Amino acid sequence: MGELLGVAVLGAGHMGADHIRRLDRVVSGARVAAVADPDPGRAKEAVAGVEAVTVHAEAQAALDAPGVDAVLIASPGPAHEEALLAAFARGLPVLCEKPMVPESAGALRVVEAEARLGRRLAQIGFMRRYDAEYRQLKSLLDSGRLGRPLMLHCVHRNVSSVPGFTSAMLVDSSVVHEIDAARWLLGQEPAAVTVLRPRPSASAPAGLLDPQFVLFETEGGALVDVEVFVNCGFGYQVRCEAVCEAGSARIGEDRAMVVTAEGGARAEVPQDYLVRFADAYDRQVQAWVDATRQGRVTGPSAWDGYAASAVAEAGVRALESGARVTVGLADRPELYGGAGG
Amino acid sequence: MGELLGVAVLGAGHMGADHIRRLDRVVSGARVAAVADPDPGRAKEAVAGVEAVTVHAEAQAALDAPGVDAVLIASPGPAHEEALLAAFARGLPVLCEKPMVPESAGALRVVEAEARLGRRLAQIGFMRRYDAEYRQLKSLLDSGRLGRPLMLHCVHRNVSSVPGFTSAMLVDSSVVHEIDAARWLLGQEPAAVTVLRPRPSASAPAGLLDPQFVLFETEGGALVDVEVFVNCGFGYQVRCEAVCEAGSARIGEDRAMVVTAEGGARAEVPQDYLVRFADAYDRQVQAWVDATRQGRVTGPSAWDGYAASAVAEAGVRALESGARVTVGLADRPELYGGAGG
Amino acid sequence: MGELLGVAVLGAGHMGADHIRRLDRVVSGARVAAVADPDPGRAKEAVAGVEAVTVHAEAQAALDAPGVDAVLIASPGPAHEEALLAAFARGLPVLCEKPMVPESAGALRVVEAEARLGRRLAQIGFMRRYDAEYRQLKSLLDSGRLGRPLMLHCVHRNVSSVPGFTSAMLVDSSVVHEIDAARWLLGQEPAAVTVLRPRPSASAPAGLLDPQFVLFETEGGALVDVEVFVNCGFGYQVRCEAVCEAGSARIGEDRAMVVTAEGGARAEVPQDYLVRFADAYDRQVQAWVDATRQGRVTGPSAWDGYAASAVAEAGVRALESGARVTVGLADRPELYGGAGG
Amino acid sequence: MGELLGVAVLGAGHMGADHIRRLDRVVSGARVAAVADPDPGRAKEAVAGVEAVTVHAEAQAALDAPGVDAVLIASPGPAHEEALLAAFARGLPVLCEKPMVPESAGALRVVEAEARLGRRLAQIGFMRRYDAEYRQLKSLLDSGRLGRPLMLHCVHRNVSSVPGFTSAMLVDSSVVHEIDAARWLLGQEPAAVTVLRPRPSASAPAGLLDPQFVLFETEGGALVDVEVFVNCGFGYQVRCEAVCEAGSARIGEDRAMVVTAEGGARAEVPQDYLVRFADAYDRQVQAWVDATRQGRVTGPSAWDGYAASAVAEAGVRALESGARVTVGLADRPELYGGAGG
Repeated sequence: MGELLGVAVLGAGHMGADHIRRLDRVVSGARVAAVADPDPGRAKEAVAGVEAVTVHAEAQAALDAPGVDAVLIASPGPAHEEALLAAFARGLPVLCEKPMVPESAGALRVVEAEARLGRRLAQIGFMRRYDAEYRQLKSLLDSGRLGRPLMLHCVHRNVSSVPGFTSAMLVDSSVVHEIDAARWLLGQEPAAVTVLRPRPSASAPAGLLDPQFVLFETEGGALVDVEVFVNCGFGYQVRCEAVCEAGSARIGEDRAMVVTAEGGARAEVPQDYLVRFADAYDRQVQAWVDATRQGRVTGPSAWDGYAASAVAEAGVRALESGARVTVGLADRPELYGGAGG
Repeated sequence: MGELLGVAVLGAGHMGADHIRRLDRVVSGARVAAVADPDPGRAKEAVAGVEAVTVHAEAQAALDAPGVDAVLIASPGPAHEEALLAAFARGLPVLCEKPMVPESAGALRVVEAEARLGRRLAQIGFMRRYDAEYRQLKSLLDSGRLGRPLMLHCVHRNVSSVPGFTSAMLVDSSVVHEIDAARWLLGQEPAAVTVLRPRPSASAPAGLLDPQFVLFETEGGALVDVEVFVNCGFGYQVRCEAVCEAGSARIGEDRAMVVTAEGGARAEVPQDYLVRFADAYDRQVQAWVDATRQGRVTGPSAWDGYAASAVAEAGVRALESGARVTVGLADRPELYGGAGG
Repeated sequence: MGELLGVAVLGAGHMGADHIRRLDRVVSGARVAAVADPDPGRAKEAVAGVEAVTVHAEAQAALDAPGVDAVLIASPGPAHEEALLAAFARGLPVLCEKPMVPESAGALRVVEAEARLGRRLAQIGFMRRYDAEYRQLKSLLDSGRLGRPLMLHCVHRNVSSVPGFTSAMLVDSSVVHEIDAARWLLGQEPAAVTVLRPRPSASAPAGLLDPQFVLFETEGGALVDVEVFVNCGFGYQVRCEAVCEAGSARIGEDRAMVVTAEGGARAEVPQDYLVRFADAYDRQVQAWVDATRQGRVTGPSAWDGYAASAVAEAGVRALESGARVTVGLADRPELYGGAGG
Repeated sequence: MGELLGVAVLGAGHMGADHIRRLDRVVSGARVAAVADPDPGRAKEAVAGVEAVTVHAEAQAALDAPGVDAVLIASPGPAHEEALLAAFARGLPVLCEKPMVPESAGALRVVEAEARLGRRLAQIGFMRRYDAEYRQLKSLLDSGRLGRPLMLHCVHRNVSSVPGFTSAMLVDSSVVHEIDAARWLLGQEPAAVTVLRPRPSASAPAGLLDPQFVLFETEGGALVDVEVFVNCGFGYQVRCEAVCEAGSARIGEDRAMVVTAEGGARAEVPQDYLVRFADAYDRQVQAWVDATRQGRVTGPSAWDGYAASAVAEAGVRALESGARVTVGLADRPELYGGAGG
């Protein structure tokens, strides 16, 4: 391949710094050309050792920096809409961390802007689509070998929630991953959502409704249930079982070295999504770099980003109301395949 | 131990014949003293090789036959109420196959009759309580090591349904096992039930709502979800995961010899509950025989039989209405521990 | 079935007392008619609660006690030969705990005595043949589905050895189970044996060669390797993988409830063979009682008892010499199928 | 990081072409600067799409090509010695595919040449050291948590052998990986080797002794056993269990999506080492590129390459003689840590 892809990274926090490291030292074919962060000290720290990179306080200045061919948005969610529109204005391909835009209204504006452009520029950071096990499951479902999928049973557990994590965030920050995964695996849009609230765990911070049990019904009549439990205490677990007409398939079982000692056989559970999905993050960025260098846009689209936000918003209303809430999506522009899943 | 316990077996169908074999050849300390079945040919076939047994067309005649010390009811559900009351009238200990009485009103009459007697005579055939894995799970939950249970995720799958199996029977014939297991594991009564109906499998007979997804909320705020799928095609699977405040525990994973051949590692799934729960059936009857010979009554009570019926009835209403249905149980008589779980 | 089988139990130690309990309370169709033990207090304790049983200091007195139809030998190994010959002299069917006779010379005398009788009376207590997983494996190998077996990889681990356990006993007390299992699974006699001695574990008592790695080559060219480790510290494990021309099959993997807590997913390992093989012991005695009541003798024969002793003796010589030792078996009498496996 | 590392790749066959792709498109920080292969058409095909690369018929010409900073040797084994010495003469860091040099005499000459240089330049392609599971196991053993390792049970199976694969190659081409892995995991040199030969599988080509069972005894008294079976028919499996004084640890169990259908639960077995160890190959080359750019040499050394060859040679003699063969290694030069493991 030819020239390295020059990437402007917006945001130099935890996730941004990790992407800078990944672009500089892990993936092939890219280099970090510019970094923007309102905190210049943080940005400088994140680019230590990176050559030929410029540092900026403003996102737009980074987009205009020399050698920038593409943008990776890792700034806080509220800054995404403006950054995406600025990238669109410059014709720059974008990889945007999720949530694409926190409010579905803003997300829809991004979809409409890209639709007006008439070509795709944005890929959204739903990295599970790049996980080896999820891809195996997707491939199996698409093969039709197990017949039509009827149910997805999902589990999403974290050791503990960060301070400030709210009951709504279990839906729109955590379950949003299952929303995208289910839409992708099933090729169907969610039509209604219900959230059940067991009595909270004593390990959850006071006032946090944790765990929750979230149910999606899709347009095609499939059912998706998600246990989300962000203070489970023991590890990071993401499991998914697809129950189909002719069999079921499970991914995300704990897999590791088995140590037999002290009366038991034990496998460690990863403590962190960066461990569980380390390869998926790498593959996602490598796939984006490869496609971008070839002038293509692949991966989850702005429509996927919008749909996930809209469904999550319905989920939060279902959580608050205790009732079943129907999901109303905007019409899907032609750019994203038109009406339907 | 002393004399063999003489057992009258009511019903010589599939289940009755299996219990006759078990009492005659598997468990210790009992013998089949009498068998009743409206079809005398079927009864005679079932007692082939059994010594010193009398055969009757009428249940009550079998109860009055010489050498009868106890009763095992394996006749069709509608005959149970009368048989239980007849056993109570004679002071005979009873092991009654589930459902104790199909309608909760009749089940409540049995509870009230036994409460009037002032002593327990009946044990109900919820054999999962005698399965080694369920007992491990019960013991773990009771130990408090994992904290309070918050959710039970259950799966109940059969290869295919028998002709005549109705949508309601997924709840009151299949899920009724999970109802009892959840009440026993959690020590809590269900307070409300909701049934979700994904689009039926193409493998299900026309008109059968299969699979279903049944949700119970308990008095204590725990959530029990059950996938019931009686035409899953591939095997008989009963799984249960208890998610607690400090960890989760799973039973019912497929466990068998692993054969690696032809590109895969494969473990067989049992095809039948008589295989999966063979030991539980044996242990249940042995435990009943042992307790009865010692003049004790242990195991699931008539109250458990009534509660399972009442909750299953609420489940069928929830299935039919599509809405959440609250469960109203009668007051629990003192004989069964009084109010509360 | 008719009258209960009256069993004389010889030996009221740990194993004898367990068999008395099993005959009295677990298996169907038998009763304990007499017990013999040189220590009458121990014998009386073991029969507490058993009705109509006589207690004896001498084995032969127990064989002659009223109501004795069959014999279960659970006395120490050196007493077995005399007890077996006494049972043969009376025409009594016998279940004899392993080792049938500790020295192969004595074992061969038992074989010859039974051969002279011209009919089988003895079954030897190799209870693994009654374990559900071993039976699955045997059935798979016999089916020919995986082609010819080429290798068996075996593991046999105990938490810790009892005081007085010698290096030779790893072979003739522990590995003797694998010797019988391999002969049965493969249908081939061992032809040579080699014992490798890794540096002993610091957890083993001083002077004990533990673990050992024992290799058998069979007449048919199959290879059987056994890790025996009687001070492994963590549990009781018996595993077996049969590697065949068209696939491999594994049994004995740790199977139990999986508890996920404190950063790991953990399944308990049984601590004791009485836990791991509890069902096998019950099934073995039930099968013996059932066959005996029908006038049949099934299960491992006196020849199997002799062959296991002879191979174990070769194993001990291999351990002591560090060299490969060939196994020389006597000619197999017609009663046991004549020459060959 | 700064300039891309310019790599000369020697050999453009299956493995060389894969490394060219890896350097060009997967790993970060490197570029393919030159390629040498006696077949210029093959070399040209392998560099299709790679920019700024020169193609050569002679290895030495590639080493002297502009922009070459380091060498990756993927030519046939007999060409390695000359290529390594040529790289040493130019002071170029090398990643050399295994076997470093097929004959241990030649391997020792490479060790001595590098020792004379007085600094390490060569890393040998034992990629299992970069596999995540092997690294977990190494880290666990090094921690001492399980006490001293006593035995390694290894399995190495391939679907089928390529034409021309000889009985000796089971040892020196296949088991050589276990030789290196065992040396690395245990930190001990093998002291003796024995090879057992079960009757060959009917699936093996006529005359091929397949499977074999290879036993290594180490200087420290540990025992390493390896089943090698290159025509197992069902997949590619590499397993390792380390049995230690206080527990055992297992890696390489089949891990994948579990599909339950048609009466069984099934996980696919990879068919190819490029699937099983795909990540290990990537990580190995990335680690080599990273270290080389920092002027460091890490990973398996020329001494490891020599020791593996010498032990494999002893293994082949053991295979041929049927006897236990002691391993005699040369004195270890100071450059590699001097005498001892």
